[in-house]
Order: sequence, then C-alpha cells, then structure tokens
Amino acid sequence: MRTHRLPPLRSASLSAALRCPQGVVDVVRDFDPRATTLFPGRGQEDARAQADLVRPILDDLQGRLRAQGVDDPHAQRVLLVLQGMDTSGKGGVVRHAIAMMDPEGVRVHAFKAPTPVEREHDFLWRVRRALPEPGIIGVFDRSHYEDVLVQRVEHMASPDEIERRYGAINDFEREVAASGTRVVKCFLNISRAEQKRRLAQRLDPSGAKYWKYDPGDLDVRAKWDEYMAAYGLALQRCNQDEAPWFVIPSDHRWYRNWAVARVLAETLSSMNLTWPPARFDVARERERVANS
Amino acid sequence: MRTHRLPPLRSASLSAALRCPQGVVDVVRDFDPRATTLFPGRGQEDARAQADLVRPILDDLQGRLRAQGVDDPHAQRVLLVLQGMDTSGKGGVVRHAIAMMDPEGVRVHAFKAPTPVEREHDFLWRVRRALPEPGIIGVFDRSHYEDVLVQRVEHMASPDEIERRYGAINDFEREVAASGTRVVKCFLNISRAEQKRRLAQRLDPSGAKYWKYDPGDLDVRAKWDEYMAAYGLALQRCNQDEAPWFVIPSDHRWYRNWAVARVLAETLSSMNLTWPPARFDVARERERVANS
Repeated sequence: MRTHRLPPLRSASLSAALRCPQGVVDVVRDFDPRATTLFPGRGQEDARAQADLVRPILDDLQGRLRAQGVDDPHAQRVLLVLQGMDTSGKGGVVRHAIAMMDPEGVRVHAFKAPTPVEREHDFLWRVRRALPEPGIIGVFDRSHYEDVLVQRVEHMASPDEIERRYGAINDFEREVAASGTRVVKCFLNISRAEQKRRLAQRLDPSGAKYWKYDPGDLDVRAKWDEYMAAYGLALQRCNQDEAPWFVIPSDHRWYRNWAVARVLAETLSSMNLTWPPARFDVARERERVANS
Repeated sequence: MRTHRLPPLRSASLSAALRCPQGVVDVVRDFDPRATTLFPGRGQEDARAQADLVRPILDDLQGRLRAQGVDDPHAQRVLLVLQGMDTSGKGGVVRHAIAMMDPEGVRVHAFKAPTPVEREHDFLWRVRRALPEPGIIGVFDRSHYEDVLVQRVEHMASPDEIERRYGAINDFEREVAASGTRVVKCFLNISRAEQKRRLAQRLDPSGAKYWKYDPGDLDVRAKWDEYMAAYGLALQRCNQDEAPWFVIPSDHRWYRNWAVARVLAETLSSMNLTWPPARFDVARERERVANS
C-alpha cells in the first residue's frame, strides 16, 4: 500500500484549524470570511499550484474508497454537507473541488424547496433517501439544515418544532456516522459586502449568470442578521464530534475551494483507506490471462 | 450570446467521421480500434493540449444546457450511452471526458446485473427511471444494450425475445429523442489483443486494480467472437438518426477520451444553446442590489 503525505501545511491540520468550536457561536463576531487560514502559498497567484497538489491525493483516496464499496455493502462512505448564504459558493465548491474526483465515485444532490410529496413526510425523509451508498462520496448542496435555517427565519415551523429538529438532526447524524459514513459539514462563510458584489456580478450584461439570479434572493439578504443568528444556533446545537462543522472562510473563492478540497482530503486520509485485497488467486489469474 | 468555434479539425466533423454507417455491420472487419481519426495533433504527446482545447467549450455548453433546465421542465437533455467490452474504457471516459464538466449538471448511472426487483419488470423499466432530467447530461455506463448483448450471447433470453427488444429499444429511443433528449451512443471499440494487455495490467503487483478484475471477465473474453457478432447486430438494428451509434476507436486511451469529449461537444454545439433570458427586470434588479 502506498501511503500519502499531504502537502506541507503551516501547522498540523486545516481541519483542526477550521473546526467550529463547541459552545455559543456568533458567526459574524467569531469568524473572518476573508481569512486564508494556513494557505501554504502567497495567495490567489498560487491557488492553481496548490490545487494541483491536492487533486491527485483526493483522487487517489477517493479511488480507494470507491474500490472498497464495490463488493462490501458495509464499506465506508463520506457525506459532505455544504451550507451557506446565496452566492457563498456551494456550486463553486462542487465545480472546483468535487470535480477533482472521479464522477462515478461521487453523488451530488442539490436540495430545493420541498416538493408536495416531500412535504408529506418528516423533514429528514428526503435526506435519508439521498444518503451515499457504500464507497461513495455524497455531496449535499443545501441539506436538512435548511429546515432549521430558512424555516426558522421565515417562521415556517413553530419554535417548538425547530427545537425538536436540532435533536432529530443530532440523532440522525449520529446514526449515519455509526453506520460507517464520515459526516463533514462545511459552512461557507461570506460577508454581507461580498454577497452584494456577487449578486451584482450575476446581473452583468453578458447575461451568462441571469439564470442564477432570483429577485427573492434580496428578500433573504434583507434578513441577513436573522440568518446569521440561525446559522449560529445550528452550528452550536448540531456540532457533535461524529458530525463536525467546519467554518470555511469564503470571501476568496480560490481559498474556499482549496480549503474544502483539503479538509476532504484530510478526512479521507484519516480513514485508513487501503486498496481491497484480491478476491481471487492472483498468480492463477495472471496465468489464465496469459493463456487467454 | 457568445458563439463557439470548436478547435480546427482536419475535416468538418468528428461525429460524421465516427458515425456508424447504416446497414450490415461487421465490427472486426469494418472498424479499426487503433485509428486516431481526425485527431488534430501528432499523438499522445498532444493529447493534453487537445483536451485543454475541448474542456472549456464542453464546460460552457453544458453550463448553458443546465441553465435552461433550471426553470423549464421541457428543456433539452442529453443522454450519452457508453457500451464496450470489459476494459474498453467506459469508466475512463467518465473520469477523463465527463469530468470536464460541472458535476451538478451531469448524472452518471452505472448499470450492473439486474437486481431481483429490476428483473420483475421489463428490461427498459430501470432505464426509464435513470433518464436525465431537464438540462442534465445523463451518462449510462452500460445500458439497455446489455439486454441484447450479454443476454443474447449467454442465451439468457429467447431469440424471439431478443428480436422483440431491438424494436422496443428503437421505439424507446425515438420516444426519448422526441421528448427533447439528444441521444448519443458510443461503442468503445477495442481489439482482443488490447483487452489482454489491460486485463494483465489489472493484475499488476501494486494491487491498485485488483478490484477491477473479475475472474468471470475471462469467460466473457472466451466468447469474443460471439460478442462482436452481438455488437454488430445491435449497431445495425438500433441505429436510427434520432439515436445514432458512434464507433470510437479505443485501443488508445488518450484518443478515446478526446473523441468522446469532442463528439459530445459537437452534439451540444448543434443544440443552439443560449443562456436563458432574464425572468426579471434587469435594470430594476441592478438598482435593488445597489441599494441593498
């Protein structure tokens, strides 16, 4: 088995540095969206080179994970949850970090407003159905956290129901972890000012980004403080060791993409992923191939 | 709207050159697995540069396709069917050509031996369930063609039933095309000698490819001629203009990956994909953002 060394970091682990601490969280006060924590280069000009260092590691580890899943229904899995305000870059992370890996080993699921059928079930019903299969890295672009974020801010569920959901989420995520899935939750933290710049970019005259713009996004933006408070509560109430939150500084796109790729690589790296052993007599099969 | 120029080809269109002709097909006699038809470089040493030319085109066109699907349930889709013998590179195409695009706009579906539930239904049942949604590029790694390939060679269905299936497939693919899906079917054509080399590679002592090796692959290999005959029939009987077959010379991995990416780019390029117009008053929204 080959071993992997991750490219040198300025300290031991990006995951440790970006892990959301336990206890009360004030998103705006506690975390700097412009930080470039532990980035081993100078800045954007080194982003491509740093991505090129992470890519083969991520690709190889994901290959091992997937190989283990081929014949083993109990093989490990990974669930990466991406949450963040509009324009924070959930889609950008998929496009730049998740795309480093083999599409056959990855399942991306974008959660929209619940359909009528989904609304007939408990809020976790549709989430369970989208959990990754053995050996697969599942990526949630939005997730069950919307049910304690938008639903809290917009009063779409009662305060009691929202309280119940924090507990239900913790139970659910513990159960998912216990069944062999590493849960990695990333809050893509952008500033209010950066969101404004990005919304304006979506309206640039080329028209190539009109489809990403929804006038309703500004209504959400108008409740920025309430959303930050709801995020703070979600980060505080649902931050178990089995399903930790990472706060990804996301005002710099290049840093955000690198950081998520790197946190994912560190997670995979800690899973002791070996290539599965042969389920056949290798010497005999070599001979059969030679004679075929 | 920006327009796209595909990188210059030695002739008008790779799709036209690799299109399987109508009529009787003898796979081994008619197609050269080592061909590098219309490759605009010298060979493998130019493969990366040529991929770098196709990637941004493919990525941009797929972005437009996906954008159209966001709000329009009747938006166009693409279905790319990959078929070929073991080791022909269906997974390699996904990893190298399909991975050029945004994972959120692509759905890869690998068809395995039918499950008990799937066997309770008509052979097209599970295929219909995996068809791409609006704006999505669906990729089938194996497909309903297995039901006229392995099932024919292994006598898993009666000759009458196999005959029925050619017609059922044609009806199905016409229906899929009529509902707004471009169907592109690629037969990855490798030689018997190249397959032997690749099976041996899977047994190399690093062990990193053992998981891809199945002793049963040699039993399939032993029936090479029967499989080529079955492919010939499938290419002949199910080769409508609405769902054409392309025969991809696949002994050279670098050529195979480039050719599929390029055929896909040509397909997307012929779909007149524009960025969807704004569904809002752009000037007013610019002002709202500025004041937000």
